[in-house]
Amino acid sequence: MVKDWLLPPKGSRDFPPEIQILRKEVFERIERIFQKYGFDPIETPIVEKWETLAGKYGEEAENRLIWRFKLPYSNREFGLRYDLTVPLARFVARFRPKLPFKRYHIGRVFRYDEPQKGRYREFWQCDVDIVGSNSPLADAEILDIVIDVFEEFGFKNFVIKLNDRRILRGLFEKELELKNKQILFKIYRIIDKLDKIGKEKVLKEIREIIGNRKSEKIGELLEKNKLDNEEILEYLESVGNKNVEEGVSSISKILEFSKAKEKIKIDLSLVRGLDYYTGMIYEAIVEEPKIGSLSGGGRYDNLIELFAREKIPAVGGSIGVERLIDAGLELGLLKAEKKTYAKIGIIYTKEIDQKFVKKIADELRNLGINTYLSFNGIRNIADGIKDLEKRGIRYALIVGKREVENKYFTFQDLEERRRSEIESLEEVKKLIS
Amino acid sequence: MVKDWLLPPKGSRDFPPEIQILRKEVFERIERIFQKYGFDPIETPIVEKWETLAGKYGEEAENRLIWRFKLPYSNREFGLRYDLTVPLARFVARFRPKLPFKRYHIGRVFRYDEPQKGRYREFWQCDVDIVGSNSPLADAEILDIVIDVFEEFGFKNFVIKLNDRRILRGLFEKELELKNKQILFKIYRIIDKLDKIGKEKVLKEIREIIGNRKSEKIGELLEKNKLDNEEILEYLESVGNKNVEEGVSSISKILEFSKAKEKIKIDLSLVRGLDYYTGMIYEAIVEEPKIGSLSGGGRYDNLIELFAREKIPAVGGSIGVERLIDAGLELGLLKAEKKTYAKIGIIYTKEIDQKFVKKIADELRNLGINTYLSFNGIRNIADGIKDLEKRGIRYALIVGKREVENKYFTFQDLEERRRSEIESLEEVKKLIS
Repeated sequence: MVKDWLLPPKGSRDFPPEIQILRKEVFERIERIFQKYGFDPIETPIVEKWETLAGKYGEEAENRLIWRFKLPYSNREFGLRYDLTVPLARFVARFRPKLPFKRYHIGRVFRYDEPQKGRYREFWQCDVDIVGSNSPLADAEILDIVIDVFEEFGFKNFVIKLNDRRILRGLFEKELELKNKQILFKIYRIIDKLDKIGKEKVLKEIREIIGNRKSEKIGELLEKNKLDNEEILEYLESVGNKNVEEGVSSISKILEFSKAKEKIKIDLSLVRGLDYYTGMIYEAIVEEPKIGSLSGGGRYDNLIELFAREKIPAVGGSIGVERLIDAGLELGLLKAEKKTYAKIGIIYTKEIDQKFVKKIADELRNLGINTYLSFNGIRNIADGIKDLEKRGIRYALIVGKREVENKYFTFQDLEERRRSEIESLEEVKKLIS
Repeated sequence: MVKDWLLPPKGSRDFPPEIQILRKEVFERIERIFQKYGFDPIETPIVEKWETLAGKYGEEAENRLIWRFKLPYSNREFGLRYDLTVPLARFVARFRPKLPFKRYHIGRVFRYDEPQKGRYREFWQCDVDIVGSNSPLADAEILDIVIDVFEEFGFKNFVIKLNDRRILRGLFEKELELKNKQILFKIYRIIDKLDKIGKEKVLKEIREIIGNRKSEKIGELLEKNKLDNEEILEYLESVGNKNVEEGVSSISKILEFSKAKEKIKIDLSLVRGLDYYTGMIYEAIVEEPKIGSLSGGGRYDNLIELFAREKIPAVGGSIGVERLIDAGLELGLLKAEKKTYAKIGIIYTKEIDQKFVKKIADELRNLGINTYLSFNGIRNIADGIKDLEKRGIRYALIVGKREVENKYFTFQDLEERRRSEIESLEEVKKLIS
C-alpha cells in the first residue's frame, strides 16, 4: 500500500513513463488532426486573474468548482483555468488576431469536482475553436474534426448528438412562454442531468420550478428524440418561431456540409451545462463503454464580447481526452505497452573500462539511436539482459571481456532472441527496426 | 494599448501561434536529446499538497516564493509545483521504479518572484534526472546532455561552471571551522548572489554573520577561481580534508568522462541556491547575452529519502528553456518566423458552391496536407491571396468560376510567385515542398 502522503492531491494523477508515452502519442495524433484542418496552437497560463474567470461559467462553477484562491503574499484573487475557452476569449480580445482565427489548445484545466471514474480535478482538454465566423460551415468543420478523432482511434459506435440553443430557446418561448434567462439556464442545467438521473427525476425537478403543466410539455419535447433527424426537423419547422427557424436552418446546413451526417443525431434533450452557448451545441458519445461524452462544444457568439467589447462569433469543441484514453484502453484500441523510448541498452561487465563504454554510447547516440547506458558494470551478461528486458528495451549491445579483446560487439535482439557479431556500430542502425 | 484586464497575471504570458510553434519546436528538440540518452518522460500534477513542498526549498522559497493557498471549499493547503525535482522525489517513493531510473520532465513551474527579464512567475523547465546511481558517470551524462542541448541550438560561447557541495563543506570546515548547517546554507545563499551584487557586497554580508577574519578567508577562496582546472584541483588536494577529497575525486572523474571537458570550468564560488544538493553542482552560462544561467543542477543524494525513507542517490539538471529561447532569439539562433502549420489555403469566390469547396478541403486533408479553408467565399482572388500571405500560408489552391467551369484548379506558390494549372489534387502533394 502506498502511503497517502506519497499521493498527489485527490483527483490528480502521476503518469509513469509507460502511461506518459501513451498519452503523448494520443495528444500527438489529435494534434495532427487539428493541424490537418489548418488550426494552429496557442498557450495561455494555468493561473488566471479571478476577474477573468468570474461570471463566465454559471453559479455552480463559480461557487464550488473553480480553484479560486489568494496567496499569503498578495491580496489579488487568482483562479486556475476552468476550461480553455474563456482564456481564448481573453486572448482574442488582447491580440486581435486575423479572423477567422483557427486555433487549437491542448492543456490542463482544473475543476474542484468530486472525483469519480473518468472525472478528475486536474485533467487535460484538447480544444479546437474557430473565432470570427458565424457560418454553419465552421460548425460543420468542428464536427468533422471530432469525427476524424474518433475514426483515428478506431471508435466504431459513436454518435454526435446535435442541438441548437436557438431551438431550445424558441421552443421554450413558444410552447412554454418561458423567457426569463435565469430560469431557462436553471432548466437547461436540470435537463443536462438527464443521462445521470433519468427522465422522471429531471421532470420532477423542473416541476418544482415551473409547475406541472409546463413540466409535462418538456416531457413531450424530450419524447421527440425518438424520431429521426428528418422527422424532428419537420416537427421543428411546424412550430413557427423565429429562433427555432434559425436553429433549424443552421442544423440543416451543418448536416449538408458534414463529412459523415449518418453519425449525427439531432437530440432536443441536449442542452450543455455552460451558460455561454448561443447556437449549435453538440456532444459525442460512444455506445460502449458507458463513460459519458467524449467530446462536447458549440457556438458561443457572445462570450468574446465580454472581453473584446464587440461581438465576435465563435464555435468550438473540446476532446475529453481523459475519457477517450480510458475508453480506448477499455476497448483495446489503445495499449499502454511501450515502456520506454530507449532502443538499445549497452551491457558491460565490471572489468571493462567505463570510459570506453561511454564512447560507444556517445557514438550510438550520434547515430541517432536512443541508447540506454547503466552506470555500473555487471557481474554477468545474463543479468544485464534480464535488466533490459524488464525495462522494455528491445536491443542489447554486449561489451564483455571477449568482445574487447577481439575487437567486436555482440548485438542481440531480445525479442526474437537473435544474436550477431558486428564490427562497427554503424551496423546497429541497420539491425534495429 | 492593451487593457490591463486583458492581460494574464503579472509574470505570466500568452503565446500566440508564431511563438507557440517556435516553443513547441524548441521543446521537441530538447526532448529528442533526452530520449537519445535513454531517458523517458513522466508527468506529475501542477497542484501538490502543501506538505509535499514544505521544508524542501529553504526559507525564502517557503515563505515568499511558493504559490501556496487554500480554497474557499476546503481546509487543505495546496501549492503549485516550485520545481520538477521534489515531485520526482515523491514519484520515486510512490512508484519505486527500477533503478537507475532515467526520466525527463518538461513542464511548468511556479515561483512568486518579482518578474524581470527572463524571469517569470509561471514558466517552463526541462528536467533530466538519474535516480539510483552515485556514479560520477551519471553526473557526466547530465553534463553531456547539457552540452548537447547548447550545441543543438548553435550556442558557441558557453561554459559549464562546476563545483561540488562536498568541496564547499570541506573547505568551510577546514579553513573556517564552519560546521553549523544553517549558517552554511545562509552563506551559500549569499555567495549565490555573487553575479548579481558583486564580491564586495557578498563579503560584507558574510562579514555580518561570521566576522571579518572568516569573511576574508572566503574572499581568498573566491580568488582561486582565477586558476585553471588543474591548478584548482592541485590546491584542493593540498587542503587535506576528507570531504574535499571526495569532491575532487568525483570532479576528476566527471572531467575524464565528459564529452567536452574544455567546456567545463571548476568554479569554487558556485554554490546553487537550493538546500537539497549534496555533491556535484553545475551551472551553464553563455557569455553573450548576459542573461543568467541557462541550465543548472547537481547531485541530491538525500532528497528522495525524505519521501522514500531510505537513501536513494540522484543527480539531475534543468534546462532554463525560457532563457534559452530568449538568448537564442537575441543571438539569431532561433527565429519566430513560422506563423502557421497550414500548408495550403483554398481561395474560392462567392459564387462557388461551398459544399464543393469543402469536398476539396476534405480530399487535401486526406492526402495529409494541412489545409486552411475560410468560411466565406471572397469577392476576388487577389483578396484571397493577400489574406493567405498575411497568415503565412505559402501555397494557394484557387477555385474560381473559370476553374469550376473548365474542371481544373489553379495552384500557386505565393513565395516564388509560381502558378500552375492542375487537374487532380494528388498533384498538390508533389508541388508543395
